[in-house]
Amino acid sequence: MTQQKEKRIDVALGKAPGDLAIVNARLVNVYTGEILDNQSVVTCGERIACVGTDVGYAIGDATTIIDAEGATLIPGLIDGHAHVAWLFTAGEFLKYAALGGTTTIVTETLEAYPVAGLAGVLDFLASLRDQPIKFFATAPAMVSTSQATMGIDLSDLESLLACEEIVGLGESYWQGVLQNREVFKPIFAATLACGKKLEGHSAGARGGKLQAYAAYGVSSCHEPIKADEVLDRVRLGIYVMIREGSIRRDLAEIAAIKEMVPDTRRLILTTDGISPRDLMEKGYMEFLVQKAIDCGFDPVTAVQMATLNVAEHFGLDDRIGGIAPGKFADMVLIPDPQTIRAMRVISKGRVIAKDGSLEAASRRHRFSPESLKTVHLPRRFEPSDFAVRASGDGDTATVRVIEMVTDLVTKEAIIDLPVANGEIQTGDAGDLSKIAAIDRSRTPGKFFTGLIRGFGLARGAMACSAAWDTSCIVVVGADEADMALCVNRIGELQGGAVVCDGGRIVEELALPIFGLMSELPIDELNEKLNAIQRAVADLGVAFPDPLLSLIALTGAAIPFVRICEEGLVHFKTGRTRGVICEQ
Amino acid sequence: MTQQKEKRIDVALGKAPGDLAIVNARLVNVYTGEILDNQSVVTCGERIACVGTDVGYAIGDATTIIDAEGATLIPGLIDGHAHVAWLFTAGEFLKYAALGGTTTIVTETLEAYPVAGLAGVLDFLASLRDQPIKFFATAPAMVSTSQATMGIDLSDLESLLACEEIVGLGESYWQGVLQNREVFKPIFAATLACGKKLEGHSAGARGGKLQAYAAYGVSSCHEPIKADEVLDRVRLGIYVMIREGSIRRDLAEIAAIKEMVPDTRRLILTTDGISPRDLMEKGYMEFLVQKAIDCGFDPVTAVQMATLNVAEHFGLDDRIGGIAPGKFADMVLIPDPQTIRAMRVISKGRVIAKDGSLEAASRRHRFSPESLKTVHLPRRFEPSDFAVRASGDGDTATVRVIEMVTDLVTKEAIIDLPVANGEIQTGDAGDLSKIAAIDRSRTPGKFFTGLIRGFGLARGAMACSAAWDTSCIVVVGADEADMALCVNRIGELQGGAVVCDGGRIVEELALPIFGLMSELPIDELNEKLNAIQRAVADLGVAFPDPLLSLIALTGAAIPFVRICEEGLVHFKTGRTRGVICEQ
Repeated sequence: MTQQKEKRIDVALGKAPGDLAIVNARLVNVYTGEILDNQSVVTCGERIACVGTDVGYAIGDATTIIDAEGATLIPGLIDGHAHVAWLFTAGEFLKYAALGGTTTIVTETLEAYPVAGLAGVLDFLASLRDQPIKFFATAPAMVSTSQATMGIDLSDLESLLACEEIVGLGESYWQGVLQNREVFKPIFAATLACGKKLEGHSAGARGGKLQAYAAYGVSSCHEPIKADEVLDRVRLGIYVMIREGSIRRDLAEIAAIKEMVPDTRRLILTTDGISPRDLMEKGYMEFLVQKAIDCGFDPVTAVQMATLNVAEHFGLDDRIGGIAPGKFADMVLIPDPQTIRAMRVISKGRVIAKDGSLEAASRRHRFSPESLKTVHLPRRFEPSDFAVRASGDGDTATVRVIEMVTDLVTKEAIIDLPVANGEIQTGDAGDLSKIAAIDRSRTPGKFFTGLIRGFGLARGAMACSAAWDTSCIVVVGADEADMALCVNRIGELQGGAVVCDGGRIVEELALPIFGLMSELPIDELNEKLNAIQRAVADLGVAFPDPLLSLIALTGAAIPFVRICEEGLVHFKTGRTRGVICEQ
Repeated sequence: MTQQKEKRIDVALGKAPGDLAIVNARLVNVYTGEILDNQSVVTCGERIACVGTDVGYAIGDATTIIDAEGATLIPGLIDGHAHVAWLFTAGEFLKYAALGGTTTIVTETLEAYPVAGLAGVLDFLASLRDQPIKFFATAPAMVSTSQATMGIDLSDLESLLACEEIVGLGESYWQGVLQNREVFKPIFAATLACGKKLEGHSAGARGGKLQAYAAYGVSSCHEPIKADEVLDRVRLGIYVMIREGSIRRDLAEIAAIKEMVPDTRRLILTTDGISPRDLMEKGYMEFLVQKAIDCGFDPVTAVQMATLNVAEHFGLDDRIGGIAPGKFADMVLIPDPQTIRAMRVISKGRVIAKDGSLEAASRRHRFSPESLKTVHLPRRFEPSDFAVRASGDGDTATVRVIEMVTDLVTKEAIIDLPVANGEIQTGDAGDLSKIAAIDRSRTPGKFFTGLIRGFGLARGAMACSAAWDTSCIVVVGADEADMALCVNRIGELQGGAVVCDGGRIVEELALPIFGLMSELPIDELNEKLNAIQRAVADLGVAFPDPLLSLIALTGAAIPFVRICEEGLVHFKTGRTRGVICEQ
């Protein structure tokens, strides 16, 4: 490392030739906000040695020269809040993500931790290393619907904070933090003590609650959906990550912020995770920067929002985020500052993509056997497991039902249902299904069955082992036998998404890594996901992404009623309750 | 600490009353660049709990309320590059520095290290703690004229980097770094490895040398004297500290930068040290911010340059640099955004100054006995010690002479001088004096005597124990007996500045702490310095600050010929030579 650096100094001094030179470029200087003509950049190894109009002295016979012919050079793009531990492996993901100029990704690890613990997260981190682009990660905070999962173990956190690629604590949903102050007090303190960041998630927080959340030292939020929410946060010194990804697309709505603040240094663009379909159809961070420009952001500002601003937020601007001596040679050549289309992508000093083709091989990580065996079900499930028993001996019962308000948001409905043989009857109640969360790791086999209205399932069942914020399999079904079939099949697959109908499996996707990630190439994965979507649509579900709607039901950050293996969880109070409303 | 934080959260949530509330203020929001009306800030302990238009809920009966009556609140000012270990103690310094709104000072420690080692620096750091304002410091890099002093000891560096208030490695003059790459390689690596900053000093560097310096990872420079030098550096991602202090005043010249860069986030204002006179007459950081505004900087930009930008550079923006929940309650109430005159200064949640009067007691640190005994001279000096011996037996000799070009810059002059009794004769050569550097610590008593032209001394001598970048006493004299008297007196005083004439001491200032710092109140110290200046002027010296001119002669960062106990040091090569030019 030091030797590399000394060589870089020699190149900068003109005592040795650089490895790669991009000459005759326009350059977006994110530090000054200028667009500069006639610029050259000379690299040495993975880093930049010198930049400017007059660095020809560092070019020798051994230097590979790329003539930019007046095209524009911007720093490699950074996604500051990604969810890489979901559906695809990093190696497959970057095959698409890198094409458009993304050279650094900061990812959450909260998916792997509840199901595979510290060893799983370390294995996941190992899968991110030695790839053509750089990954950083955040340690999982673990705000969960499940009390068994709530809060990362402190010694696990210390181990993760000691890892160089861990730049902070991952998103900690504000309600959970304020509802569990004793749990998160030492977690936040340990993170801040080593100078790392607290990533926020303050969806809907306002007034004193937002103030309190900021007062904890939380320094980012990717949840604003309106410009005035951005303003509220950035005024409190919080870096706001404007989200434009597969969960939500908020950039167009939020773009008004550009007229509201003279200083945009604390605005960032992020995907908050992207689906295979969007990745293939739209692209990755280059799509966001282009959209920001199309929404009226100044091109330099738009580039800063995906480069320097992110780097500064994470304290990584000593190495990424700009084109300057000593920084990683991460650069994207685009036609002009308004057109974010990667002609060449340079990462760590190498051309890794050219005109939409990857020129560098991603590394396929060999996950440990433990990471591939995370579905721990002590027995096969039976249809009768999904019965909901009434408490008394009346022939009706008053029950709590999860009611879908949108494809993600729910509310609580209290309804009366008939009881027969001691069991709640859902048959004639209109779009009422069973929903169950089954712990596959923390308390293996522990499960809870509830009722859900408005999911749209006319028959069959679907299940997935990638239930948010928990270590659960989540299954929804109009038919208990199909529910059991789904769950048992996920056990056989050691993770996956399964759709059953009429006693047979109609679609399935294996997710063998942590029960979360496929090993398929992204195009095949996309096909599989499309097939699942069609199959679920056939069963009556009209949501745009039924799998997402399903796995989000255990998520701790979405209002208002969620489910986990412990019961129905009320978002506003964090309290867990059963189906039956006791008198 | 955690308990304090939990209480702060309670205040932010409205569950407990705040300690102090400033209500009805305009507020300069450095994060967004806005000026906002009708703002209130509520504190809890040392920190801010909540800020905004609607935080009245956090005010209770127990809350002290300050009605700003529409006056403007800005964050406490920060000096990012100070020299506190020179002349005055921190406790005395802040009595003036805090009056105008400076609440954080980042100081060098390079003065104390060569004369008192690690223990001395730690004692100095202890003197900075528990004061009404905050101090941070940088570890000394020790680019020196003296090879014996060159480069901080690595284990000392490790000890300092482990201190929370050490935010980086202090200024490392670029020439010395490039001339001594092997020395500074591990020093830089150790600093960067723990995520701390490399403070730069790139005076006059350009082209490949500036690129190389940036490629080392150096992230600031306070030496530009023209706007285009600022531009060269900030384009390379270097934070530029625009200097306006007692060494130089560059702000007016540099102000043109504001039209040159759209983004000013990497511009900072600093004093680089301030004299008692300037401190008393002009003030401290508030003077710089006001001058920036008067030079045409936008008021918000000017405030950012002394608050958020500095905090971001040092990675301290999690706690200082802006008015937001969780940050230290460091604020200044000024009449309006254009008028940087402190009506009230709030530091760590307390009103410490009001209308120019200090309301908080500074702490007087009891320095260790070792810090008070740093002048180690093995014997008394005699006039004959300052003879310069010729090498041959001719009656003239060709000699190297330090020639003063300005009051700080020198050049080498080669002249012939008569020799008598084997000694170089200076009597008739016109404004030629003896100059000597005597090591008082590292190699006690080792000394070197040279010749200097243009200092202006017609008779007598002056000496000081605070010679820059070395552990030397530096003495200049037209008379060897007066030189010896000065040096011996400094030994008796255990540090000081002494002026002698005709065999008697005409002025002296004791600098007992490290031989660098006085314990006098600043007004008395100023009087004393004025008296010394008058005394030296009487001896013929016309420089604006002859003491500064003297002690800078051992400094490693000023062109072109310097002196240390090892000989004459050539700035451009770093090589040390004697007075006599060998044939």
